[in-house]
Amino acid sequence: MNTPPFFVGVDVGGQSIKGGVVDDRGQRLTTKPAVEFTESEKGQEHGLAQMAKVVRRAIAEAGLTLDDIAAIGVATPGTMDIPGGVMLEPVNMPTWHNVPVRQYIADEFKKATAFQNDANAAAYGEFWAGCGRDAKSLVLFTLGTGIGCGIIVNDFVIEGEHSHGAECGHMVIEMNGRLCGCGQRGHLEAYASAISIAKRTNEALANFDGPSSLRSQFMKQPFEESDCSRIFEAAVAGDPLAGQLIEDTAQYLGVGAVNLMHTINPEMIVFGGGMIATGEWFLERIRFHARRLAFPVPAAKTTICYAQLGGNAGLIGAAGCARQLWRRR
Amino acid sequence: MNTPPFFVGVDVGGQSIKGGVVDDRGQRLTTKPAVEFTESEKGQEHGLAQMAKVVRRAIAEAGLTLDDIAAIGVATPGTMDIPGGVMLEPVNMPTWHNVPVRQYIADEFKKATAFQNDANAAAYGEFWAGCGRDAKSLVLFTLGTGIGCGIIVNDFVIEGEHSHGAECGHMVIEMNGRLCGCGQRGHLEAYASAISIAKRTNEALANFDGPSSLRSQFMKQPFEESDCSRIFEAAVAGDPLAGQLIEDTAQYLGVGAVNLMHTINPEMIVFGGGMIATGEWFLERIRFHARRLAFPVPAAKTTICYAQLGGNAGLIGAAGCARQLWRRR
Repeated sequence: MNTPPFFVGVDVGGQSIKGGVVDDRGQRLTTKPAVEFTESEKGQEHGLAQMAKVVRRAIAEAGLTLDDIAAIGVATPGTMDIPGGVMLEPVNMPTWHNVPVRQYIADEFKKATAFQNDANAAAYGEFWAGCGRDAKSLVLFTLGTGIGCGIIVNDFVIEGEHSHGAECGHMVIEMNGRLCGCGQRGHLEAYASAISIAKRTNEALANFDGPSSLRSQFMKQPFEESDCSRIFEAAVAGDPLAGQLIEDTAQYLGVGAVNLMHTINPEMIVFGGGMIATGEWFLERIRFHARRLAFPVPAAKTTICYAQLGGNAGLIGAAGCARQLWRRR
Repeated sequence: MNTPPFFVGVDVGGQSIKGGVVDDRGQRLTTKPAVEFTESEKGQEHGLAQMAKVVRRAIAEAGLTLDDIAAIGVATPGTMDIPGGVMLEPVNMPTWHNVPVRQYIADEFKKATAFQNDANAAAYGEFWAGCGRDAKSLVLFTLGTGIGCGIIVNDFVIEGEHSHGAECGHMVIEMNGRLCGCGQRGHLEAYASAISIAKRTNEALANFDGPSSLRSQFMKQPFEESDCSRIFEAAVAGDPLAGQLIEDTAQYLGVGAVNLMHTINPEMIVFGGGMIATGEWFLERIRFHARRLAFPVPAAKTTICYAQLGGNAGLIGAAGCARQLWRRR
């Protein structure tokens, strides 16, 4: 049973905008989110209108009206001014600049409106209603094209003083190391994101003469981000080169986990995103390295697990931020 | 003018225990702290009695009586259970085990008693009454034998779920890199602590045939932690080898700063401890590397500065934690 208050959460991505209504415990009222294409090339006014359309559709699909909604939360990607409620220069929406998301939604619906970074929102979603619902603190790494991160301590989102909190994919783990997509070197993301796994695979095959089940595909075309699952599958099937690449990836993610265990020391470190489809054995390898490399107490006591909310973490977390705002009023 | 409420802060070290009384704005009532030797070899009961002696002396030297004191705070080193108020296995007090510091002081003085890690307390001292008194968030690196760290966000000390928050000296900045005193590899502390600077200097001299003003001393005896100031002096005097060693140190500290700028994204990153006697030029080199390696927004907006409270940061911060406790009651 879902009982009021209800909150709308919206998760804005480069391709699509997803929204849903959740109740006071973070449970969604509909199985499927309301979705619209972002169509960012049509400009930011259109993008804002699409966000509003998603809010209306989410409310209607939940069988509710606007009067039933206590507050709205919107999560967006890219550089932003979180306290100001503004998207600055989102890299996936190249024509958008200084988009006043929070003000627009608040004016459109006359509701208290929360604004949050999408990776922070996903972490808050897992903290509130996912794998961390019984935890006091949590760090979420979302493994995808890049590595997103969110940090929640005692129901507080570490947004950072300049809205750059929890950019932990851009921690240096190897000085002067691999080039990251951001232009700097040695970041976790340059080792363990999906793109980085594909790149490391191409480099390994180019520098290795031995047999590998990955070679025939590589000869046709270098591995790309979307081929990552094949590299994991080859590792499972016993291909030694793929096995080493995936084991190295687990180690890099273990190092990333340790750096957060020695900084935030959260109750849980959570991994989410496409890579977790790989299954429990990959998580076990991450755990192995994190526990080997951490201080004994956090090594023994930190829960390291997979995320539970999948692609809905962001919208549930955005709704959770709306709930935080509403409760504080 | 110092007006009530007054708080006692105590900073317990391996060699000595320092205490002082501060007012509601973190101003000390006496210029010099009350000090007793820890004499840890005499056992933990003696150590607890010494802490109590320091509390009494600090109150007396401030011209007050126990009735004037609102609360007491004690900061200690080593592994601990912060919520439990217990020192576990402090490395510098080898015979001490599970020392119930908070309970002992609370029973002895019948006052609300706060307990905190010494590096966290120093960070809180700088946040409350030092260089960060106008800031909303701050990370303090204390450069000494090791690298201590404390993180304060919105008046909240990041203690960590298992009392291991802000062990940022033990962030990995170089996988499989230099051996750290803790037994793991590649930690910031293994590159930029005073001991590490001495070790890197010895290694550089052993692997370098050219002239260096450091060589004559090295030929007599390898550099030790206490010789660090000479390496800085040689760098200032133009010795190229020393210059490179110190420039590398600034870069390592810059990387450490960046990893916190991309995790906590605090308003200020503060460096304290013996190394800051070196002067503003060394800080400027740390700033240079941090700004070069960070994202543009935190690079432009994060204040990077030296600490202001010197060796009193810990006791002032311990008193500040006592004030937090007292205000919440």
